[in-house]
Amino acid sequence: MSDNKTPQEATPELGRRRFFNTTAIVGLTAGLAACSDKGGNATAPAAGSAPAGHATAANASHLKPGELDSYYGLWSGGHTGDVRVLGIPSGREILRIPCFVPDALVGWGHTNESKKVMGTKADGSLRYTVADTHHVHASYKDGNYDGRYAWVNDKINSRVARIRLDYFVCDKITQLPNVQGFHGIFPDKADPVDPAINYTTRVFCGGEFSIPLPNAGTEDEKQYRSLFSCLDAETMEVRWQVLLDGNCDLVATSYDGKLAATNQYNTEMGAKYEDMMSAERDSCVFFNIARIEAAVKEGKFKTIGSSKVPVVDGTRESNKDPKTALTAYVSVPKNPHGVNASPDAKYFICAGKLSPTATVIELAKVLEWFDGKLEKLDGAIAAEVELGLGPLHTAFDGRGNAFTTLFLDSQVVKWNVEKAIAFHKGDKAAKYVVDRIDVHYQPGHINASQSETKAADGKFLAVGCKFAKDRFLPVGPLHPENEQLIDISGEKMALLGDHPVRGEPHDFIFFKRDLLKPKAVYNIDEFPHAVKDAKDSGVTRNGKKVTVKMTSLAPAFSLREFKVRRGDEVTLILTNLDKVQDLTHGFAIPGHNVNFIVNPQETASVTFTAGEPGVYWCYCTHFCHALHLEMRTRMIVEA
Amino acid sequence: MSDNKTPQEATPELGRRRFFNTTAIVGLTAGLAACSDKGGNATAPAAGSAPAGHATAANASHLKPGELDSYYGLWSGGHTGDVRVLGIPSGREILRIPCFVPDALVGWGHTNESKKVMGTKADGSLRYTVADTHHVHASYKDGNYDGRYAWVNDKINSRVARIRLDYFVCDKITQLPNVQGFHGIFPDKADPVDPAINYTTRVFCGGEFSIPLPNAGTEDEKQYRSLFSCLDAETMEVRWQVLLDGNCDLVATSYDGKLAATNQYNTEMGAKYEDMMSAERDSCVFFNIARIEAAVKEGKFKTIGSSKVPVVDGTRESNKDPKTALTAYVSVPKNPHGVNASPDAKYFICAGKLSPTATVIELAKVLEWFDGKLEKLDGAIAAEVELGLGPLHTAFDGRGNAFTTLFLDSQVVKWNVEKAIAFHKGDKAAKYVVDRIDVHYQPGHINASQSETKAADGKFLAVGCKFAKDRFLPVGPLHPENEQLIDISGEKMALLGDHPVRGEPHDFIFFKRDLLKPKAVYNIDEFPHAVKDAKDSGVTRNGKKVTVKMTSLAPAFSLREFKVRRGDEVTLILTNLDKVQDLTHGFAIPGHNVNFIVNPQETASVTFTAGEPGVYWCYCTHFCHALHLEMRTRMIVEA
Repeated sequence: MSDNKTPQEATPELGRRRFFNTTAIVGLTAGLAACSDKGGNATAPAAGSAPAGHATAANASHLKPGELDSYYGLWSGGHTGDVRVLGIPSGREILRIPCFVPDALVGWGHTNESKKVMGTKADGSLRYTVADTHHVHASYKDGNYDGRYAWVNDKINSRVARIRLDYFVCDKITQLPNVQGFHGIFPDKADPVDPAINYTTRVFCGGEFSIPLPNAGTEDEKQYRSLFSCLDAETMEVRWQVLLDGNCDLVATSYDGKLAATNQYNTEMGAKYEDMMSAERDSCVFFNIARIEAAVKEGKFKTIGSSKVPVVDGTRESNKDPKTALTAYVSVPKNPHGVNASPDAKYFICAGKLSPTATVIELAKVLEWFDGKLEKLDGAIAAEVELGLGPLHTAFDGRGNAFTTLFLDSQVVKWNVEKAIAFHKGDKAAKYVVDRIDVHYQPGHINASQSETKAADGKFLAVGCKFAKDRFLPVGPLHPENEQLIDISGEKMALLGDHPVRGEPHDFIFFKRDLLKPKAVYNIDEFPHAVKDAKDSGVTRNGKKVTVKMTSLAPAFSLREFKVRRGDEVTLILTNLDKVQDLTHGFAIPGHNVNFIVNPQETASVTFTAGEPGVYWCYCTHFCHALHLEMRTRMIVEA
Repeated sequence: MSDNKTPQEATPELGRRRFFNTTAIVGLTAGLAACSDKGGNATAPAAGSAPAGHATAANASHLKPGELDSYYGLWSGGHTGDVRVLGIPSGREILRIPCFVPDALVGWGHTNESKKVMGTKADGSLRYTVADTHHVHASYKDGNYDGRYAWVNDKINSRVARIRLDYFVCDKITQLPNVQGFHGIFPDKADPVDPAINYTTRVFCGGEFSIPLPNAGTEDEKQYRSLFSCLDAETMEVRWQVLLDGNCDLVATSYDGKLAATNQYNTEMGAKYEDMMSAERDSCVFFNIARIEAAVKEGKFKTIGSSKVPVVDGTRESNKDPKTALTAYVSVPKNPHGVNASPDAKYFICAGKLSPTATVIELAKVLEWFDGKLEKLDGAIAAEVELGLGPLHTAFDGRGNAFTTLFLDSQVVKWNVEKAIAFHKGDKAAKYVVDRIDVHYQPGHINASQSETKAADGKFLAVGCKFAKDRFLPVGPLHPENEQLIDISGEKMALLGDHPVRGEPHDFIFFKRDLLKPKAVYNIDEFPHAVKDAKDSGVTRNGKKVTVKMTSLAPAFSLREFKVRRGDEVTLILTNLDKVQDLTHGFAIPGHNVNFIVNPQETASVTFTAGEPGVYWCYCTHFCHALHLEMRTRMIVEA
């Protein structure tokens, strides 16, 4: 690489590295692989400078009043356990879809319907009220999003949530057995065997923390293993798991459905960070989906603990013979982070994190290895080239270029994949680095418009910067994260704007708005307990259990008052009979910890214990009408 | 008013009204006061058209990359029970400050420190996990914000939260006794007696729902009353309450500290909306703060139920004599909504809601009445002029103009206060309506930059539109609200942009950024349990109670592992020793429902019960360092 060093590039970089690395590189120098210089000779532009050909770049993220965004963005909600819907290029947050964590606006985690999705303990309280979502991905058909579902993971409690993209609501949550620290997730794009199934039917999930299996408390971390799981996309049941040496980090899937992969940053199976970064190379594990499912069918599995999920053996020792192997461990440099599928369906790219490199793995070669036609598995590595310090994740423009975040350099590097392969093969004149741009600051995930589909269109790049520092008005110790938007339509990248988001989104996708056709009004028949006529309203009693049925139609609830007794277990069912788009009502009861909303034609119910005798004004909490303030019903609690 | 009708104005309005009113006016026509036409002859501009003199208006809300907003906005968070910090003019949400509802990012409602602020039941669980915040206001000095505190109300459970504006955190929550449906809130701006106290020392709170006092379950709503409460701004204790006929809606305070006011929309004391809108006029009640506090001092109060808060008698019957009256009920038209203080300190303006009018009340005249120098209290009404259908709230530009939202017309009307007074006095040539602009749609609260201070600067107007309908990409049945931004620097208003926000913010203020000086790093001494040195880390046991002390310093926790036993009550105390701005760490424990963050130099603690024996990888959940993924500690639970 040193042949390619140019003074123009080397000098300005040093200053930035010194500045950033004071915070981000502490304790890292000992384990950091040497980075002589970036390949490819591109000069670094000043931040935010609009290169030639981007005349309109400075305003490209600004929409006029009433103008709609051109892309839907699905952003993982991080700790808030939701999925956020952003409009791109404006960066505006249009919706938060609660999944793993209660949401007091919609009553998520409060209504009986949402509690059933979230999961409760024996006493009826929620099993979990915290989460740490990382990655959101959507269902495919013909290599593009089909608008059916999206999935998001919860790392803390190893859960997967599914979102219906017709109503933008979470409808199912599954907890993975024997998995701790569930990190990467990706749906498949086709069936590995049946070509007629050219759409998503599986969701793959990587278990990041190696643990005793079953978790019996051993302290010898060398005995710990991790599991790679497959869910059925429709039933959301866990189909099978694969036992692995080392851990799972991110997940990617091939367009032909034959391969899934996860990168591993701790093949050392260490318990401390020094141990986790001791080896020079780690792995990207490939899964042969057809073979795994055949093995499961043939009963070649075990189960772990009380889980009935079939677990096949994907460890190195048991998969040495390519002809029968379920898994293939391709070697990649030191603590890789990120594995991404190129839109031409040919490559998976692993970024090095503690190595300044990206590794390009050719999928056809991996399949050749599984067929016994490639002698050495690492022969599938088409390129391994230097990009800069701390490479993490990669996006694509559909024109042969990749965009990789450099965490330590606080940059995005644009590089040409075929030129990188040529360079790797020996053509030292191949200038694979096309451009670099400073971002603000410490970028993690990155994605381009339609990047994870065959329809990658190379218009915009979103970069999830983990540190915002000075980019927004100061608001105390907790800073937002900074989702920067970059114009990638030209040869040079151009910074368009800073979009603050509440920590910590991690990952996101964004795609053309015409791929979704959401519905603004519910179908009343989707709700088995719907009160379809105001005349069906009323109070019925069964011992201490009381059911209150009610409807809403602006500006009134069908019951103008209702009576219960102290200590009653009251189940209140509310159907919103309004049919007008955006005409949502809320329902709150003072002192009873009740508040939820009903969208047009929606039914929701809550169960609570009636408190002390007295008058409680239940009121509409979602502004609906000029007489919204007057929209109330009176709950009279009798002794 | 019919003298002033112009064909230019009347015709286009009718079409819009017909369109909007199909949804918003249902059931309202019977009670709606006649609106012959708007006063003032202004023609309605097309939505979004940039009038002359606003050449740059179209881009005025667009910031270049790295450019900071010029105003801080504090937005009530609605059902999410938080306060949101927005940058204006960009409309970007930079922070959410959790108050009444748990927040899984910061661990609000999960850490022992935040649970103490929020309030717990006997079993240690949170008393409430829902809220309905409406109004946020900040502390004053010399008639402008002083950057100490902000307050926000929870309507459902009658709570007030205070926010420290140095760290942007909620530090105290108070529940009002004997109040249901706590709506309006406003700090005072000066002491009514001591001129040296030219800053906020009180917070006034209006109780919206009239209830039996004490709440003993009577069904005769004519016996119900409401309370107006005063909190001590420093101790957050309730100082006193005033018993009222009718209810309290919004609250306003005078710049001289002598008067507070609340508008009343249900002087009928009805239980159903038809009853609540039966009278032609309702009230704006003025409170003579000095007299109320003197009465409390003299022991002229009672208490209600178990509350020890002094309650003085502010009912109409007891306050007929101006010389001794504590309260004054000024008459205003039908179901008023909104009372706002003009920045010249002279007027309170009440909007009519079901009357198309605004009522301008002259504060000096109200004081004259209390002094026995004004024969009829309604002589304090300086003007009552027609504005349009459904007037709700009013903002000011500091140049004598008021801006009132018209809910039913989906417009903002700009009108000149002194010209309205002249018109009311008989000068029918006074053109008080200056301009109208369409907004999208059904606007509720409105505020202008610095509007609620003597430093109102007339630059921007934010309008909280309750319905967004078609203004953003469709995202299913639940629409965001639309906080529109309008340029008010010129004679004509110009629409700048649509900003979506999660429902339902209600109210907000925004002010110049140099009024706040937030701190990015905590003072470690603010936390009594701080673990100031990594050497103090460790596990101590007292029977089944275990304390784990730990520090964080990227990329490691001070304890690399720790052991507890199944069923232990574990209190884990974590101090973040990192001192670098934005270097926040998180701490999650799989299966134990634990996740929280520690900002630089912050200490937080959680208490949980150790679960089944096994290995649990506790990990950093807030991206901190290139070795963030490797930043873990191992909790080993023994049998």
